[in-house]
Amino acid sequence: MNARNVPLLCDYYEYTMSNGYFENNLENRIVYFDIFFRRIPDNGGYVIAAGLEQFIDYVRNLRFSDSDINFMRSKKVFGETFLNFLKNFRFTGDVWALPEGTPVFPGEPIVTIRARAAEAQILETFSLLTINYQTLIATKANRIVRAAGDRSVLEFGSRRAQGTDAAILGARAAYIAGCEGTACTVADKLYGIPSSGTMAHSWVQMFDSEYEAFKAFCELYPDNTILLVDTYDTLNSGIPNAIRVFKEALAEDRNRKIGIRLDSGDFSFLTKKARKMLDAAGLTDCKIVVSNALDEWLIRDLIEQGACIDVFGVGDNLITSHSDPVLNGVYKIVAIEGQDGAIIPKIKISENIEKITIPHFKKVYRLYGEDGKAIADQICVYDEIIDDSKPLTLFNPKATWKRKKLVKFRAKELMIPVFKNGKLVYQPPSLANIRRYCSEQLETLCDEVKRFSNPREYCVDMSEKLWNVRKRLLDSVHEQRIFS
Amino acid sequence: MNARNVPLLCDYYEYTMSNGYFENNLENRIVYFDIFFRRIPDNGGYVIAAGLEQFIDYVRNLRFSDSDINFMRSKKVFGETFLNFLKNFRFTGDVWALPEGTPVFPGEPIVTIRARAAEAQILETFSLLTINYQTLIATKANRIVRAAGDRSVLEFGSRRAQGTDAAILGARAAYIAGCEGTACTVADKLYGIPSSGTMAHSWVQMFDSEYEAFKAFCELYPDNTILLVDTYDTLNSGIPNAIRVFKEALAEDRNRKIGIRLDSGDFSFLTKKARKMLDAAGLTDCKIVVSNALDEWLIRDLIEQGACIDVFGVGDNLITSHSDPVLNGVYKIVAIEGQDGAIIPKIKISENIEKITIPHFKKVYRLYGEDGKAIADQICVYDEIIDDSKPLTLFNPKATWKRKKLVKFRAKELMIPVFKNGKLVYQPPSLANIRRYCSEQLETLCDEVKRFSNPREYCVDMSEKLWNVRKRLLDSVHEQRIFS
Repeated sequence: MNARNVPLLCDYYEYTMSNGYFENNLENRIVYFDIFFRRIPDNGGYVIAAGLEQFIDYVRNLRFSDSDINFMRSKKVFGETFLNFLKNFRFTGDVWALPEGTPVFPGEPIVTIRARAAEAQILETFSLLTINYQTLIATKANRIVRAAGDRSVLEFGSRRAQGTDAAILGARAAYIAGCEGTACTVADKLYGIPSSGTMAHSWVQMFDSEYEAFKAFCELYPDNTILLVDTYDTLNSGIPNAIRVFKEALAEDRNRKIGIRLDSGDFSFLTKKARKMLDAAGLTDCKIVVSNALDEWLIRDLIEQGACIDVFGVGDNLITSHSDPVLNGVYKIVAIEGQDGAIIPKIKISENIEKITIPHFKKVYRLYGEDGKAIADQICVYDEIIDDSKPLTLFNPKATWKRKKLVKFRAKELMIPVFKNGKLVYQPPSLANIRRYCSEQLETLCDEVKRFSNPREYCVDMSEKLWNVRKRLLDSVHEQRIFS
Repeated sequence: MNARNVPLLCDYYEYTMSNGYFENNLENRIVYFDIFFRRIPDNGGYVIAAGLEQFIDYVRNLRFSDSDINFMRSKKVFGETFLNFLKNFRFTGDVWALPEGTPVFPGEPIVTIRARAAEAQILETFSLLTINYQTLIATKANRIVRAAGDRSVLEFGSRRAQGTDAAILGARAAYIAGCEGTACTVADKLYGIPSSGTMAHSWVQMFDSEYEAFKAFCELYPDNTILLVDTYDTLNSGIPNAIRVFKEALAEDRNRKIGIRLDSGDFSFLTKKARKMLDAAGLTDCKIVVSNALDEWLIRDLIEQGACIDVFGVGDNLITSHSDPVLNGVYKIVAIEGQDGAIIPKIKISENIEKITIPHFKKVYRLYGEDGKAIADQICVYDEIIDDSKPLTLFNPKATWKRKKLVKFRAKELMIPVFKNGKLVYQPPSLANIRRYCSEQLETLCDEVKRFSNPREYCVDMSEKLWNVRKRLLDSVHEQRIFS
């Protein structure tokens, strides 16, 4: 998949800045950038980090071809020193990141990059887009999977995905978050995500009658035959024809796996009727699959209304996160190393208070109670260590008078080293393991955080040390601006 | 960009169907598929067709590697005849399409494919995703460009795009629809879309003071210097520092092009203040660029409130069509050729009336009045010819009693031949020409169709011949189902 690493997929200003660092002797300054987001899509309770494997791929394989360099030269604004740097580009920095599948909350770093300014700057656009999209889709898919409960969810969205990567990597993210499979064949080939699919309406239309279409399909694919029953008339034609064909098939092999799919109409009304018709014909094992404009809300309603559905195929609303199609992850400088190696925290102020960054090179601890449930996260300065054998006082950074003393708890550091001096020091887990890890991590979140509407806000605290650093920077910027 | 044609990016059921056609001696039946959509995003008045060039690229270059074939074989459901067909795949059919940049309305074919069933079936997923996404983004971008009026709109969304293709091809679609440039460097390299960009907050933070950051940038990039003024405090620090630096620079070269960019805060309030400060300093030619959470509604409000803005940089809301991120284009069989070559129209019924297809191999005429404005489209059977020297009676297919007689009009056929027997017979225009064509075509639409809210519904009629074909099929399916 390295063909998908498009080196110049980068906002132009990254290059003007990086080139400018060379021209101002700043290219070798060591800087720290965080990738984090500010708002949870759909006003949900958490986000699921995803896309790290593709980020790693990008960072490892980023090379600029002669054609890229020539294009850049043709812009007539970049110096030869910078162009030469691009020509010989190799990432030489450090990266820490949350493993894929980790639930994460606003303000927490998903990825931290420590590198020469010239290098770190040009990673911004691609890093963001790959982390933003997969994280978005994992988050949305998990809402849909939660709504479906013990029923299966399949990802059916390729045709409505916003491009090739969206289809493929969206299927990957959906699988991490609990979908059981995809319609996207190449996602199976590349990532081993179980692909499946049977027929569209065109199959039925290619035959002289629906019965013949079903019969031919059933004979050809005996393993798990799902017939699409809504090409002409679900209740009066599709289901009766499916029943006829299935009975003929079962007469020859009683153990066949069979099912029907509905792609239109009211699924509560139709699936209850369908279930009765199938059961009356003795086809109690026949599964019912539905697909059309499904999302977490409709799935929840259908289940509540007693719809008889075994599998939900979800397209548009999952693969684009239709109701909220952007994760607003950003890439912000949080510290710079001085010539002496001292780490100098940096802050960005903003007219929009929520755009003010959390400065400094940081780490994140997740704190678990005795029941294994996550109580809170604490964002700390990089050199702090939480000793969970001692009591810990948490305070709400938005309301510092709210304090809480933790006594019996377990502290786990969330970020793991990924690159060290440009060398990959992390072996990305298999997709199956990421999926399992995600499911385990979600088990540690309390139900209230998982609610679709107005979920409980999970506590993300800052250590007192970090909070003081931030306050000091805010104060000093405030002073500076008066004299500017 | 052929590396981006992922052959197995295809819903699995296309393969089970195509394989099934072989097993049922249907693989060589000539079929007609239409790509069309049912609903205009954002409840707008029209959609702008885009993505044809990438569709052509895909169809021409679709090949399956040994690795693809081996993967398919490993699924243990596909016959060797079918696998051999994939191995030697070449598209041999015909395609007609709307040129990119054409305004199009629900139900009208954007692309019609005539090919062997086995071939046509497996083109579905990729064809849809590439046409759906670019058409969606061209449509959205054009709303934003319309809102901005004579001010410029730049596409700034790569980091929030749903993947690599979305970033690159979204920039392409936005340019077709009237954006003047992009931040996406590779879109410039590949498609010649003017890329631009200056600095992010990190540039300012890399220097000891905002003034030094601005000064260094201004010296380095004298051509068109845009300074980002909201890192610390827009009115009290950013703009005063920018003014200081610009005055120093203009003292050396009075003809420099300069500007400031705001990325946060209330743009109506801040840009009015900024304009006054700049003008008072004699910098009346200094442009003001804004970027943050912009869409057509906010841009219209800002202009109405007298905000002093020259350029809008639009990110998330454009590149994802945030308010409505899906164009629901579908790929439906509309006809099959009999052994004798006769074209047999096919229909798909549905519980959802709006999902019932318009059958048959069709053509679309656009009818223009004497003032050059488009009056209506008429969808006809492929062999009909509208003679615009004679009067024409239009009727509304949803309300057939509504009739209208056109006397002086010009009829133009919209679809053009793209492939003939697998051979490309169409030279895709340059992007600049597509952009110009789009702008000209939009000029032919009346203002009422361009309204953001509740636009006038443009008339899309069916010829009487086509309407009768459809009615006959609906009736016959209704009869059939009673006896099924």
